[in-house]
Amino acid sequence: MSHGFFTIISRVEFEALLQGFHCLEAEITDLAKASGRVLAEPLTSGHDWPLMDRSCMDGFAVNARDGFGASESNPGYLECSATLSIDQLPEISLLPGECARIATGGVLPDGADAVVMVEHTQEMDGTTIEIRKSVAPGENVMQRGEDAKKGQVALEAGTVMRPQEIGLAAALGFEEVTLVRQPRVGILSTGDELIEVNQIPTPGTVRDVNSHTVAALVEQAGGIPTSYGIIKDDLTSLSAALAKAIDENDCVLLSGGSSIGVRDLTVQAIEAMADAEILAHGVALSPGKPTILGRVAEKPVLGLPGQVTSALVVMHVLILPLICHLQGDRNGFDESRRPMRQAELARNVASKPGREDYVRISVEDRDDLPPLAHPVLGKSGLLRTMIQANGLTAIAAESEGIYEGQMVDVWMV
Amino acid sequence: MSHGFFTIISRVEFEALLQGFHCLEAEITDLAKASGRVLAEPLTSGHDWPLMDRSCMDGFAVNARDGFGASESNPGYLECSATLSIDQLPEISLLPGECARIATGGVLPDGADAVVMVEHTQEMDGTTIEIRKSVAPGENVMQRGEDAKKGQVALEAGTVMRPQEIGLAAALGFEEVTLVRQPRVGILSTGDELIEVNQIPTPGTVRDVNSHTVAALVEQAGGIPTSYGIIKDDLTSLSAALAKAIDENDCVLLSGGSSIGVRDLTVQAIEAMADAEILAHGVALSPGKPTILGRVAEKPVLGLPGQVTSALVVMHVLILPLICHLQGDRNGFDESRRPMRQAELARNVASKPGREDYVRISVEDRDDLPPLAHPVLGKSGLLRTMIQANGLTAIAAESEGIYEGQMVDVWMV
Repeated sequence: MSHGFFTIISRVEFEALLQGFHCLEAEITDLAKASGRVLAEPLTSGHDWPLMDRSCMDGFAVNARDGFGASESNPGYLECSATLSIDQLPEISLLPGECARIATGGVLPDGADAVVMVEHTQEMDGTTIEIRKSVAPGENVMQRGEDAKKGQVALEAGTVMRPQEIGLAAALGFEEVTLVRQPRVGILSTGDELIEVNQIPTPGTVRDVNSHTVAALVEQAGGIPTSYGIIKDDLTSLSAALAKAIDENDCVLLSGGSSIGVRDLTVQAIEAMADAEILAHGVALSPGKPTILGRVAEKPVLGLPGQVTSALVVMHVLILPLICHLQGDRNGFDESRRPMRQAELARNVASKPGREDYVRISVEDRDDLPPLAHPVLGKSGLLRTMIQANGLTAIAAESEGIYEGQMVDVWMV
Repeated sequence: MSHGFFTIISRVEFEALLQGFHCLEAEITDLAKASGRVLAEPLTSGHDWPLMDRSCMDGFAVNARDGFGASESNPGYLECSATLSIDQLPEISLLPGECARIATGGVLPDGADAVVMVEHTQEMDGTTIEIRKSVAPGENVMQRGEDAKKGQVALEAGTVMRPQEIGLAAALGFEEVTLVRQPRVGILSTGDELIEVNQIPTPGTVRDVNSHTVAALVEQAGGIPTSYGIIKDDLTSLSAALAKAIDENDCVLLSGGSSIGVRDLTVQAIEAMADAEILAHGVALSPGKPTILGRVAEKPVLGLPGQVTSALVVMHVLILPLICHLQGDRNGFDESRRPMRQAELARNVASKPGREDYVRISVEDRDDLPPLAHPVLGKSGLLRTMIQANGLTAIAAESEGIYEGQMVDVWMV
C-alpha cells in the first residue's frame, strides 16, 4: 500500500463503495427547518385535503346542468340566492335555476357542482345573473381529497422536502416531521507547512485553504461541518485527531498534502483505528486520483487529494453525493440532478484514456448562438482555474479527448 | 384600480421594476458564513499567492536546461544534492548537474526552475538520479503570484462567494470579508379562512400553506424570512401588520387570498402607507397574473397570488431573483443560471398568446433516449401539480402552444 502505488478503481466502483454506507437515523424536526431534507417516515394524512369542495375562482357556484349550452351569443340566466362567506360553511342549498356568489377558496353549497368565473357573467339586476359560458361538473372546483385522502400516504419516506412538500405538510397539520439526520462531517487538515488563516505566512508556509473550501461544500450539500484545525504530519498526532473526529462525526474528511508521504500517513492513520478497513486507494479520476476511502466503525473516512482543484473536483463528484446519500436522499448519486448547460467547445482538449477527466470550463453566453465552453487549463495546485471556471465537463474514461465545435454538457458549479 | 381590473405589464417590464430597487448595504462577516453571499468591496491581496515558486508534484527540482533531451530511451543523470523539507525555505542553491528531492508544495531552491515528476525518474545509487523525461522551465511549478499578486484585486466587488472564492480569501488571510447584507423578508398571510398549522380545520377553514412554502423559498435564495402570522382581511389589521413588517424588513411579501376583494385590500393597504406607490398591478404570467408590486419607503412590497401554485411560480420567476438582486448579485435575473434540462415534450400544450405560461413538468429519464417531459396539468389552488412536477417549462408570450415531440428546456425546481 505504501511507496505511492495505488490500487486504482473506477469512479463507478468508488461510488458503489460509497453507496454501501447506511443512511443515518431519524429525528423529529420542526417543519420550518425541514427544507431540503429527507423524510424518514411517510406522512399520512389525518383528513382529506381539501377538506371540502372549494372554488378555484371568484364567480358563481352553480349546478352545471343549469348552465349547459350557455354562450356569449346565447347566455343563460340564474337567480343569485346568496353571497357566500369565505370562512363559513354555506347554510343554503341551491335549487334548480339558482346560483350563489362565491370567492376563490369558498366552500361550494349543496346543490352546486361547478363555478362560473366572474369574467363570464354579468349582473342584470339585484338578483339575476347572466351566464355567458357553460361549465362542466367539477369545473373550477378543487375536489375534496384531491391533494390528499384521509388515512393515505401523502408523502413517501425518502421524499426530499422542497417548498411544495413543506406546503403540503403544513396543509395537513404537521408542525414537526420525522427526517433523516443531517450528517456531521469532521474536517482534518494535515500538513507541516500549513498555518491558520489568521497567521502571517513565512516563505516556507501556506495558509490552510482546503478546510475552508471543503466546509463550504459540506454545508452546500446539507452536512454540518466541524473543522478540527491543522494536524501535524506525524502518525501520533494524526491518529489522535482522527479518533476524536470519528467519534464526534458521521463522516471524516482528511485534507492532506498531496505528497506521497502524506498519503501513506493517511492510510496508516486510518488502519491504526479499531474496526478499520481501507476500501479504496486511488480512483480513476483526473484531477482526484490520490483519493483514499476507508471505513472506520461503519463510518466513511476519506483522504482527499491535497491539491485544491483536485479536492474540489472530488468533493463535487464523490463527496457531496455521499453526504446526500447519508441523509437519506436515494438519488444522491444521480447525475441527471446536476445543473447542466449545453455549450459548444471552444477548443480541443486531449485526455488520457483509462481515467475520467473533469475539465474546468468557463461558459460564455452568445447572442443567437449556443454558449461557448472555454476550457480553463492550469495547475491543480492553484485556485485560479476554479475561480475562472463556472462549470466542469466530464471526458469519459475510454475517450482520448473532445473536439472544438463539439456540443458538451457543462455541469455548472 | 379596484373592481378586479388590472394594468397588466409583461414579465420583462415587471423584472425591470424589481431591478430598480437598490441593493442593501455592506456588513463585515466571518469567512465561514460567507458561502453564497456577495462581496460588497473588492478583496485586495496583501501579498503574492503563492508566496514563492512551489512544486506541483512529488519529484526532483531541477534546472530545466540540465534535463533537455532526456527521454525513456536516452535518460539524463543528475546528482541529488538535498532532500528539501516541505515547511522550510531551502538553504541550498542548485549547481549545474544537480537536483533536489522535493515534495508537492515544497519551495523550489535557487537555481531550480522546474520539477521532474518522481514517476519519470529512477534512483541509481545513493545520489545519482536518472531523469527519463525532459521538462520545460516552469513545468510542474506554481509560480509566485500566479493566483494573486500583492496590491492587486484578487476578487472584484459583486463576486458571489463559491467554495473556491472562500478558499482564495482564506489563502490571502481574510478571516472576515465585507459582504452585502442578506435581505430580511417579512411574510404576511391574509385571509379570514386561514388557520395556523397547529389548529384543527373546520369545514370553512384551511391551514395557512403559503407562508410555509414562501419562507422555504426565501431561505433558498439567501434571504432571512420572518413570518408575521395570519392577518384578518380588514384594512385596519392589514395596515398595522404591514407597517410593522415594512419597518422590520427589507422586503415584504403579502400572501393573500386570490379573491378580488383580498387583492383590492392589499392594494389599499399598500397605498395607505407613507411614501408608498403601486408600481404594477398584474403581470402577463400564467399562473401568477394577480401579482402586485408596490414601493414603500424605497422597499419592495409584493402581493402574491393566493393560489399555492401561482405563488410558487411567481416566487421562482420574480421574487427569488429579486432577493438575489437585493443582496448584490448582479446576475440575479439571469435566466442562464437556472438549472435546466432538455427533454422531449410528451404531449401538446396549448397556451393563450399575450402571456408567458409556466407549465409544470415531470421529467422522466429514459435509456438511450432524451428524457421525456410530461406536462402536469391541474388546478393552481392544489399542491398536487407542484408535488408531481420536478420542473417548469416556459411558453413564450407570443406562442400559442408547444407540441408533442418538441425539445423543451425544463427548469428543474
